[in-house]
Amino acid sequence: MQINAWAALAKNAPLTPFVYEKELTPEDVLIKVKYRTLSNSDVLFIGDFWGNTKYPLVPGEDIIGEIVKRGDRTKGLEIGDVVGVGYQVYCCGLCEWCKSGLEQFCRKQKNLRIHEHGGLADFMIVNHKFAFKIPENLQRPEATPLFCGGLTVYSAIINNGVAKDMKVGVVGIGRLGHLALKFLKSMGCQTYAFTSNTDKKTDLAKKGYNVIDPKNDFTEYKESFDLLLYTSTADLDWNKYLSLLRPVGKICLVGFPQNRVQFYAGLLNDYSRRQIVGNFIGSRKDMIDMIGYASKHKILADAEIFPYQKSNEVLSLVRDGAIQYISVITKLKEIL
Amino acid sequence: MQINAWAALAKNAPLTPFVYEKELTPEDVLIKVKYRTLSNSDVLFIGDFWGNTKYPLVPGEDIIGEIVKRGDRTKGLEIGDVVGVGYQVYCCGLCEWCKSGLEQFCRKQKNLRIHEHGGLADFMIVNHKFAFKIPENLQRPEATPLFCGGLTVYSAIINNGVAKDMKVGVVGIGRLGHLALKFLKSMGCQTYAFTSNTDKKTDLAKKGYNVIDPKNDFTEYKESFDLLLYTSTADLDWNKYLSLLRPVGKICLVGFPQNRVQFYAGLLNDYSRRQIVGNFIGSRKDMIDMIGYASKHKILADAEIFPYQKSNEVLSLVRDGAIQYISVITKLKEIL
Repeated sequence: MQINAWAALAKNAPLTPFVYEKELTPEDVLIKVKYRTLSNSDVLFIGDFWGNTKYPLVPGEDIIGEIVKRGDRTKGLEIGDVVGVGYQVYCCGLCEWCKSGLEQFCRKQKNLRIHEHGGLADFMIVNHKFAFKIPENLQRPEATPLFCGGLTVYSAIINNGVAKDMKVGVVGIGRLGHLALKFLKSMGCQTYAFTSNTDKKTDLAKKGYNVIDPKNDFTEYKESFDLLLYTSTADLDWNKYLSLLRPVGKICLVGFPQNRVQFYAGLLNDYSRRQIVGNFIGSRKDMIDMIGYASKHKILADAEIFPYQKSNEVLSLVRDGAIQYISVITKLKEIL
Repeated sequence: MQINAWAALAKNAPLTPFVYEKELTPEDVLIKVKYRTLSNSDVLFIGDFWGNTKYPLVPGEDIIGEIVKRGDRTKGLEIGDVVGVGYQVYCCGLCEWCKSGLEQFCRKQKNLRIHEHGGLADFMIVNHKFAFKIPENLQRPEATPLFCGGLTVYSAIINNGVAKDMKVGVVGIGRLGHLALKFLKSMGCQTYAFTSNTDKKTDLAKKGYNVIDPKNDFTEYKESFDLLLYTSTADLDWNKYLSLLRPVGKICLVGFPQNRVQFYAGLLNDYSRRQIVGNFIGSRKDMIDMIGYASKHKILADAEIFPYQKSNEVLSLVRDGAIQYISVITKLKEIL
């Protein structure tokens, strides 16, 4: 069938209408897309930041839509179901990772914008394993950023053993970071936001978060954090942040600093067992757990919402840092 | 009482006889020292490598000796018991770490050569919590290096979830590394030694270990290791070693490279959940487990053994790299 999308046809080109062909296999569902994010990660893909972009590039990483057709082998999903889709849209099902419920490490996985077109389109065809039914209170634009960004931070929080009353900091408060703060606060953690942005500092304090300016010398916070979740792309003085950790504390990286991470080994192993750990999206189980948790605790993104036709303006706003925290959700264009 | 030791009286001074006073408290045992190690860590302390050495400095980090006197509150230990002593010789017993069985993170701990004199002496007075009874088959010079070096690598192996059949590499095969290889092999791991030293390569291959030269381009080993245990002081190309890890693999540092550890964050979090973790000696429970394990599996160091009188020559050999892997154990001087 023909799918009507918007795409960048070349590096940093503006988005223009683009039609592509894709057929539904027995394992797929056809989703009429309702909402999708446009964020800095789309800007980076369009700008070929990682050097692997293939054009035309259809942006859109988190998606909410409705199933309008399903293949024969898509058990558990029905026409009319509202589903969320994130960065991963396929796994082989046969490798050790797939078999052990860690599909996010499958070496044959497919991801939106690398192997499959993104969500800025009228429809998407997605493997049924990666279309996740969502409850009614998440069927709205502000829930869209949960399906990649939300999953990534929720998985990082859960898989690093975060529990009530722990002291957790989020470094970089954007698309991922602001969702991390919401999850952590709802879990009863002592939640700290690290940001130097004046507007964000005011807003986050108003929302009840502890705010630390990275220019602070950190003396009063030394050896006190259980986890620091790095969601930024900025280079840090990593020694300074490691010194914030308790002897068994961790820094978890879900962001990609431009330059190398650098630190003195003694900060990991001298009178301590500190850790620097990575996290990559989450498993299917993490996704299902995250959806249940977000629904129960009413976790939604602080999203700025724009119509489909404004997609190019939205990318400009993202490039200019004019979107406060968060990925932007574009509404379905009225007439496709 | 008077304790007869050998000490460096100033930075890099040769060892000379040195007498110090220490009294037995009700919590202490008096140990007649039989064996102790002299290793590169003593050389570093004598040379004030960390800038915190106080002179006179009595070296000797791992000790085996016999209890000849005990305080009133030293339950569980008897005169005549042969015990091992490692780097940590005191904990407060009151902090969260002590209460949770992670005494190695107690902020009031005392360590040999920083807060208390080392083992190159006729006697030692040690808090009973840090004198560990050892079975008969470990009451010999070659078991001495177990009590600091052995504990450190055993704790790193156990606390990082190593299990049978896992693929584990040891980077740097010296005092700690050669013991790590023995523990790992006895656990049924696929055990790899990373060393560029020609003599060691030959010897380790003869002993049945897989040997990888760090100059190897590692292509055939990519994404295959569960754990790499770094026991060295050499700077590495950390990106190259991270690329050896499976998606959930870890590098554990128990050594201190001279310069900063540097790597690209994507090696931790792109399609993976890799970790760089520290480890510091081990808990009292780790020590007791390690002793039981070493006794059962007959883990002993490949030690070169010298009499007490040769202590200065031994330090020279250590400085020159002329001790093959391992810390050197000096026998008790015949007449004290």
